[in-house]
Amino acid sequence: MEYRKIKDEDDDHDVASDLESLKGKPHTVASSNIALVGAGSNERTNWKRKGGRGVVTCALTILTSSQAILIVWSKRAGKYEYSVTTANFLVETLKCALSLLALTRIWKNEGVTDDNRLSTTYDEVKVFPIPAALYLFKNLLQYYIFAYVDAPGYQILKNLNIISTGVLYRIILKKKLSEIQWAGFILLCCGCTTAQLNSNSDRVLQTSLPGWIMAIVMALLSGFAGVYTEAIIKKRPSRNINVQNFWLYVFGMAFNAVAIVIQDFDAVANKGFFHGYSFITVLMILNHALSGIAVSMVMKYADNIVKVYSTSVAMLLTAVVSVFLFNFHLSLAFFLGSTVVSVSVYLHSAGKLR
Amino acid sequence: MEYRKIKDEDDDHDVASDLESLKGKPHTVASSNIALVGAGSNERTNWKRKGGRGVVTCALTILTSSQAILIVWSKRAGKYEYSVTTANFLVETLKCALSLLALTRIWKNEGVTDDNRLSTTYDEVKVFPIPAALYLFKNLLQYYIFAYVDAPGYQILKNLNIISTGVLYRIILKKKLSEIQWAGFILLCCGCTTAQLNSNSDRVLQTSLPGWIMAIVMALLSGFAGVYTEAIIKKRPSRNINVQNFWLYVFGMAFNAVAIVIQDFDAVANKGFFHGYSFITVLMILNHALSGIAVSMVMKYADNIVKVYSTSVAMLLTAVVSVFLFNFHLSLAFFLGSTVVSVSVYLHSAGKLR
Repeated sequence: MEYRKIKDEDDDHDVASDLESLKGKPHTVASSNIALVGAGSNERTNWKRKGGRGVVTCALTILTSSQAILIVWSKRAGKYEYSVTTANFLVETLKCALSLLALTRIWKNEGVTDDNRLSTTYDEVKVFPIPAALYLFKNLLQYYIFAYVDAPGYQILKNLNIISTGVLYRIILKKKLSEIQWAGFILLCCGCTTAQLNSNSDRVLQTSLPGWIMAIVMALLSGFAGVYTEAIIKKRPSRNINVQNFWLYVFGMAFNAVAIVIQDFDAVANKGFFHGYSFITVLMILNHALSGIAVSMVMKYADNIVKVYSTSVAMLLTAVVSVFLFNFHLSLAFFLGSTVVSVSVYLHSAGKLR
Repeated sequence: MEYRKIKDEDDDHDVASDLESLKGKPHTVASSNIALVGAGSNERTNWKRKGGRGVVTCALTILTSSQAILIVWSKRAGKYEYSVTTANFLVETLKCALSLLALTRIWKNEGVTDDNRLSTTYDEVKVFPIPAALYLFKNLLQYYIFAYVDAPGYQILKNLNIISTGVLYRIILKKKLSEIQWAGFILLCCGCTTAQLNSNSDRVLQTSLPGWIMAIVMALLSGFAGVYTEAIIKKRPSRNINVQNFWLYVFGMAFNAVAIVIQDFDAVANKGFFHGYSFITVLMILNHALSGIAVSMVMKYADNIVKVYSTSVAMLLTAVVSVFLFNFHLSLAFFLGSTVVSVSVYLHSAGKLR
C-alpha cells in the first residue's frame, strides 16, 4: 500500500500491485536517463529527429518495469514504517535537483538564453500548480475509495485511466485519434484488465454506485492531470524542458509539504522526517524521481497516448522478465491480455491519420 | 458430452459447453429458415443483392444461440442414453429431406434447369465426400483428446479453430484479408477465449505436447472441412445451393452410417435405433439440421470468416439473453471478452480491402 501511494502521487503508473508475486532487482537505467536529462537544446532537436521519442519511451517503459519489481521486492523485504508523504516530498525534491543539475550543464555549454533561463513570468507559471493539485486531490480520494473497493478491485478499476486519458486527450488537447486508434485504445484497456484477471476479480462487479463514481472521478482527475501537464509543457515548445520540469516539481514539493502536514504531522514531529527509511526506500525514491522525469520527457517529445502505451507494455514486460528471473507463472488470462495489448499497439501505429 | 458430439459432427459450432449454467427454451426460427431454403434461383439473386448475406448470417447466429440454450436445457433435464451416431445420422437425413423439399418447390416454380437438376457428374461429385470424411476423422480424434485435456480445457482449445479457419481460408481459397482484418481475427480468438475464462482455465496451459498436437490437428481438420466446403459450393456459383447441399448431406449420411457401425453397433442392435430418444432429442436434431443448412447458405452467399464471426457472436448473444431470461451472472472476463469481440467485428468491417 505505502509504495503504491508513492507511485500514484508521482506519475500514476499502475503496474506494481498487478504483479504481487514478483521479486527481484531493479534494472540499472539511471545513468542513461541522467544523460538524457542533461541534453542541451541542440541535441534535443537532433533527438526529436533521430528517434528521441523512442529513447524516452523506452526509458519510461524500463523504469516503470523496474518500479514494479522494486515494489514487490520491498514487500518481500518486510513492512517499512516510514511516512509515505515524506517519500513523495523527497521524490519531488530530487526531481527538482536533477532538473537544476541538467540546467547548469546546459548553461555552461550554451549560455543562458530566453528559452533556458530559470526566471519565469506569472503568465507562464500560473498554470503549473494545477497538475500537482489534481494529483493531491486524487490521492486524498484514494483513502476513501477503499471503503467501497478492495485493493485488487482498485487495480482493475485503475484501467479506467486509460479510457479517461484518451477522452480528455481528445477534448482538451483537441488532438484526433483515428477510428482504428480508438479501437486500439479500447483494446489496450481491455487487454491490460484481462492480463490482471484472477479468481477474485469478479468481486469488482459488485462495486456499489459510490465506489464506481469515485473510481470514475479518480480516473478523470488522473487523466486530466496527465493531459494538462502535456498542455503546459507543449504550450511553449522552444522552452527548455528542464525549466518547465523545475517549476512543475517546485509546486509538487509545495503540495506534498501540505500533504505531510495534513496526513503525517504527528509521525514526523514525534519520530522524525526520515523514520523507517531503508536502502530500498532510497532506491524507490530514486526510481520514482527518474520515472517522473521520463514521463515529462514523453509529454514533451511524444504525448499522453504514448505514455499510456509505454506504462501498459511495461506491466507485461515485467511479468515476462520475471518468468525467466524468478520462475514466475503466467496465467492464460495474461497471455490473452498480452496478445490483445500487442494487437492494440499495432493498431495504434497502423491507424495513424495521414 | 453427447450433445456436443452431435454439434461437432454437424457444423462445428463451439458455443454449447461454454454456457454450462444456462437453461431455457429454444428460439422459434424454424419457419423463417425453411422459407429461406425454399427460395428459387431468381429470388436468390435478389437476396444476394438485398442483403441476403445478412439474412443467412442472422439465421445462423440465432440458430447457434438457441442450440446452446437447447444443450443446457437437455443437460438440466437429465442424461439421455441414446446413441449419438444415430442422432447425427438423422440430422444428415433431415437436411437431405429439407433440401429435396426445397428443390421440389423450385422445380414447380421454375422448371428443371441445368443449374437445379439433381443428377450430377463424377467430376462435380467427386470432392463432396471430403468434408464429411474430415469431420468423421476429427470426431474420432475427439475421443482420444480427452485423455490429455479435460472438457473445459477442450472448449478453450477449440478457439484455435478460429485461427486455423483464417489461415486455411487464406491458403486454400487464396482470398486476402487486410492486416486490420487479421488483427481483428486474432482478437476474435482472444476475445472468445477470454469470455470463457473461469477459475480452472489455467489448467489448459499444463496440456502435454500430444494434447497440443491433437488440438492443433483437430483445429486444422475442422478449419479445412469448413474452407473445403466453401470451395466446393463456390466452384459452381450458378448451381443451386439445394442440389449442392443434397449431395453434401448424402455423403454425410453415408459417413455417419459408418460411424454407427464402428461406435454403436451393439447398442443399436440390442436396444434399437431410437432407444433413449425424447422430445428434446428431436428438437436438437431439428435445430442441428437447420443450423447445418444455414452454415451452407453462409458458405454460398458469404464465407467462412462470416461464419466464424456469426457463431462467435452467437455465443455472446446467448449469454446476454440468458441474463434477462434466467438471471444468469456474467463474469468480468465475459465483459472484457465481449468488448474485444465487438471491436474485432468493427475491425473486420473497417479493414475491408478496397
